[in-house]
Amino acid sequence: MIKTVVWGLGAMGAGMAKLVAGKPGYKLVGAIDLRQEMTGVELSEINDIGEPGAGIKISRDGEKVLAETKPDITLLATNSFVDAIFPDLQLVLTHGSNCITLAEEMAYPWHSHPEQAALLNDLAVKNEATLLGTGVNPGFVLDTLILLLSGVCSQVDRIHAARINDLSEFGPTVMRTQGVGTTLREFQEGITKGDIVGHVGFRQSIDMMSDALGWALDEIIEERLPIVSDIRRETAYAIVEPGDVAGCNHVAKGMLHGKEVIRLEHPQQVRADLAKVQTGDHIKIFGKPDINLTISPEIPGGLATMNLAVNMMSSAMSGKHGLRTMLDFPLPHFNRMT
Amino acid sequence: MIKTVVWGLGAMGAGMAKLVAGKPGYKLVGAIDLRQEMTGVELSEINDIGEPGAGIKISRDGEKVLAETKPDITLLATNSFVDAIFPDLQLVLTHGSNCITLAEEMAYPWHSHPEQAALLNDLAVKNEATLLGTGVNPGFVLDTLILLLSGVCSQVDRIHAARINDLSEFGPTVMRTQGVGTTLREFQEGITKGDIVGHVGFRQSIDMMSDALGWALDEIIEERLPIVSDIRRETAYAIVEPGDVAGCNHVAKGMLHGKEVIRLEHPQQVRADLAKVQTGDHIKIFGKPDINLTISPEIPGGLATMNLAVNMMSSAMSGKHGLRTMLDFPLPHFNRMT
Repeated sequence: MIKTVVWGLGAMGAGMAKLVAGKPGYKLVGAIDLRQEMTGVELSEINDIGEPGAGIKISRDGEKVLAETKPDITLLATNSFVDAIFPDLQLVLTHGSNCITLAEEMAYPWHSHPEQAALLNDLAVKNEATLLGTGVNPGFVLDTLILLLSGVCSQVDRIHAARINDLSEFGPTVMRTQGVGTTLREFQEGITKGDIVGHVGFRQSIDMMSDALGWALDEIIEERLPIVSDIRRETAYAIVEPGDVAGCNHVAKGMLHGKEVIRLEHPQQVRADLAKVQTGDHIKIFGKPDINLTISPEIPGGLATMNLAVNMMSSAMSGKHGLRTMLDFPLPHFNRMT
Repeated sequence: MIKTVVWGLGAMGAGMAKLVAGKPGYKLVGAIDLRQEMTGVELSEINDIGEPGAGIKISRDGEKVLAETKPDITLLATNSFVDAIFPDLQLVLTHGSNCITLAEEMAYPWHSHPEQAALLNDLAVKNEATLLGTGVNPGFVLDTLILLLSGVCSQVDRIHAARINDLSEFGPTVMRTQGVGTTLREFQEGITKGDIVGHVGFRQSIDMMSDALGWALDEIIEERLPIVSDIRRETAYAIVEPGDVAGCNHVAKGMLHGKEVIRLEHPQQVRADLAKVQTGDHIKIFGKPDINLTISPEIPGGLATMNLAVNMMSSAMSGKHGLRTMLDFPLPHFNRMT
């Protein structure tokens, strides 16, 4: 049985714990969460995990859990940013545990965080562990899937992809970081201050694709544009008046010799249905041949992130030590037994 | 420079030779074709290959070419069937050459041809060579791409995919093997006699998917249905009268515990436009979550087959010896330098 620790029991971590609880060959052995209200709660009481979580108390002491349980693999879902989770990743690797993290910036940190990436890689190799960052995006829709499609091309001139989704189900944190319900002026101020962030991980998706395709980009340009609503929209956590902002259209462009060769768009808003916006994932490759793909509705982000991470566990256990990316492992796929 | 031999210089082989001629780090060193009219022709004269083919005479003597040129890799594009190319594959492997073949049945021969697969695997391992069968289908649209999508699922109940394409550009061989222009009675006779074959490779696509997903199927059922035209259709090589057959709708079903869990459809016909049929690739996964994908128009078969095979050359050179499949290598993708 592969001993598994889950670090971070928010929606994603609790979801992965539930999946691991039902996964043949895997066994939950520990749970870590820094939030006071989670400390001491038994994992069995979280997210209908039940018996596979019996006897496992959620702890704030990561080091103690790792030392006592000696996990084969740790699933870390606490934060999007390399700087924030760097000490925790060091701790996991020092204990010789393989690790999959949902931190968006860890999906391809080699260019955005070269020093931390090199340190983590060395630490992983030294401790014979594999470290992988993945999730729906970055990790799948706007990088891995595009690259697979490029496999049938003899030339790729330009990539244009969009992930159009709906935020209506999300809570106050997402409303705030996407600027939902702000006036145009508040939106611009939020962008300037860094409170409104849009999508995290475009840099990593573009770095991964440009490396894989053999493009040495000049630069990556990101823009966060307000999605101004001409109608009233309402959700459990947000009200958008006509003329105000229903969400953020985050656009990232990869430039090669002054030309835009990658364009990724991720317009995220509440009540897309009221504005007659059809959600979906769209990929266009301009090359030989052209490819025009649509997934409609879009691949659901939360589910896909958890599922992909759990489906990658066997790859992360396969002995390819070091800091790895979705480019390093055999074709990701579901398997009901592994 | 990676020394490359091309075996079979039909449309696919000549196309791959042209791609290799422009591929950094690769060098054409030999060409094999059994057809009398090809013997002695210089490779430079084929398909605008020019200088990279200079001095390379197409030969009927595979053994001699392999012995003299000692290729690092051989691209074999002569025939769809394992039995037909088995001796040629043995010859290539015995000379220690890696090999990529477009033979549809070689995309996943482990179940359909277990003895030959085992023999080829042993021979490849013994000679430190890699053997891979690939192409657009089997090899990509109706297996590899579906499996990648399953990577974001925690449950897969059923797969339904269709590849709807147009045969208008093809010549007499394809018209005959797809039954284009036959009467309904002739079509049924052609199916019975084995002259009308439909698509080659459904068995392999389904075997690959069911192994990857962990399904031990009861059986695979194939049906070849006539596409009856209610209008007149004409191409350079075929005339279809109203009431006659415009092509073959080949359907393959994977059964698990008596239930259809995989359904692949490949309706191929001439002048699909006249019948207002929109060509495209369609994939539906029913599971958690559901996924609904469309590529429109369909990925063009000939181009995609050649490009994918050439893009897989670096994987076939990566030292993973033995008989391999698309499941064994890191994510396929285009790279302009490799």
